[in-house]
Amino acid sequence: MKKLINEQLQEILTQYEPSKVLESASYSLLAPGKRVRPLLMLALIKDYGHDPYLGTDAALALELIQTYSIVHDDLPAMDDDDYRRGQLSNHKVFGEANAVLAGSALLTAAFETLVSSTYNNDIKVKLVELFSRQAGLNGMILGQSIDLELENKEAESLDLILKMYDLKTGCLLATALETAAILVNKESDRETLRSIGYKCGRAFQIQDDVFDATKETEELGKTTGSDVDNKKVTALDFLSIDEANELVASLYQEIRNELQVLNLNNSEIYNMIEYLMNRQT
Amino acid sequence: MKKLINEQLQEILTQYEPSKVLESASYSLLAPGKRVRPLLMLALIKDYGHDPYLGTDAALALELIQTYSIVHDDLPAMDDDDYRRGQLSNHKVFGEANAVLAGSALLTAAFETLVSSTYNNDIKVKLVELFSRQAGLNGMILGQSIDLELENKEAESLDLILKMYDLKTGCLLATALETAAILVNKESDRETLRSIGYKCGRAFQIQDDVFDATKETEELGKTTGSDVDNKKVTALDFLSIDEANELVASLYQEIRNELQVLNLNNSEIYNMIEYLMNRQT
Repeated sequence: MKKLINEQLQEILTQYEPSKVLESASYSLLAPGKRVRPLLMLALIKDYGHDPYLGTDAALALELIQTYSIVHDDLPAMDDDDYRRGQLSNHKVFGEANAVLAGSALLTAAFETLVSSTYNNDIKVKLVELFSRQAGLNGMILGQSIDLELENKEAESLDLILKMYDLKTGCLLATALETAAILVNKESDRETLRSIGYKCGRAFQIQDDVFDATKETEELGKTTGSDVDNKKVTALDFLSIDEANELVASLYQEIRNELQVLNLNNSEIYNMIEYLMNRQT
Repeated sequence: MKKLINEQLQEILTQYEPSKVLESASYSLLAPGKRVRPLLMLALIKDYGHDPYLGTDAALALELIQTYSIVHDDLPAMDDDDYRRGQLSNHKVFGEANAVLAGSALLTAAFETLVSSTYNNDIKVKLVELFSRQAGLNGMILGQSIDLELENKEAESLDLILKMYDLKTGCLLATALETAAILVNKESDRETLRSIGYKCGRAFQIQDDVFDATKETEELGKTTGSDVDNKKVTALDFLSIDEANELVASLYQEIRNELQVLNLNNSEIYNMIEYLMNRQT
């Protein structure tokens, strides 16, 4: 499925006139990402007993949004990261102006992709509603805003850090899972799936904090120690590494329990979450 | 109508949780803009014999996109402008990071506004298609990309400059006019309206070049001479001020002629174009 996603992402880009910004957007979109969100979405569709290909267009839109957030997040004015997905970050190669435009272009292309899909209009509208809400001022952007406000400040509370993680990372993971429910017409599962998505986001971010504090740049494919360099507040301001690992384990356990409540035919999602639970980078 | 637009823009922002980025987005969105695109859209709806209120939600979405493009365009990495709409530009007040996020937030909110409108789903989908195409990698962003590539370069040709103007400014004006046609179900007028939109964009930009070369900062409410400071290529690299003014006049004449082909009941659009034609800032 990952190969299909990569091929389709490349295909999407062929509809655009060549430009420096297109080059810049392609550079980050086609970098070797893990494609976690698209793969979670497709796995869940399969677990619902449907053909995962049903999710392709929505999965591409999600990866477009994820890549936009990465390109902007790495900018000098933001996290100022030099490496991403094992290569130089976008602005290091194309300059800040192109990186700003490429990010916005990817965000715009996500909505373009959703409405030029083969889904019917009711589904298209539901998806644009979901994506714009989760990526917007009450979602991912709010998480980024909290992140900025906490920079160079004393940590206030673990709760605020966790809220930030839910918003920054959980929102798009929830989008991945809720999209699957929309596509297979399981509206009643959306609330549970949203909760699972937020918990995954929280767990991912705490895992990243631990990696950032303990691993080498080469191993992760992005700059490490950057949270400390940026004087970023993280969950590790409140938790020891052991406590953080325990919190991650308990979040994954809650996720497993919530997944069991859903009436799923397969265990693809379960296996992916096991894989993410055990990841070392 | 302008008062209504301003009130409704303020209303939209109340649905979001308070944050620094929301403050930053509000600052630029509620600044005293001319609201040209929304007003053109509503004028055309009226000329079609419909209630202009029909266009409110789409007009708000358009102003959200216009404001996003301004906030990002003023960034130090882009045009590096200190003033906009008679006040300090966004990043001068809130910093670069917040300005980047606020721009993306406004863009996302535009799509959120379109799909949470009261239009039916077929219209919502048509509008998201139109807005995302015109703002994207074959539209406004492509114009910005050409603009960046021309910076610090010898001017290549007037045609390339005019193509850039069509994309940078014409795309959203065409969106304003085509949206009116979508809302009153005049699909067959869309091509003519698109052409008028591009011509308006071209004319606006050449007028701005002339203002930038001849007026004081105070009068325009934004930094002047900045095109020269940034070593920007403009139409004035190929045209004298007189030739530029003549080109603007002939574009407006073509626009008037094309408008007459449409079967309009009123002359609101005609009057607005007269007003824009005679603007001095």
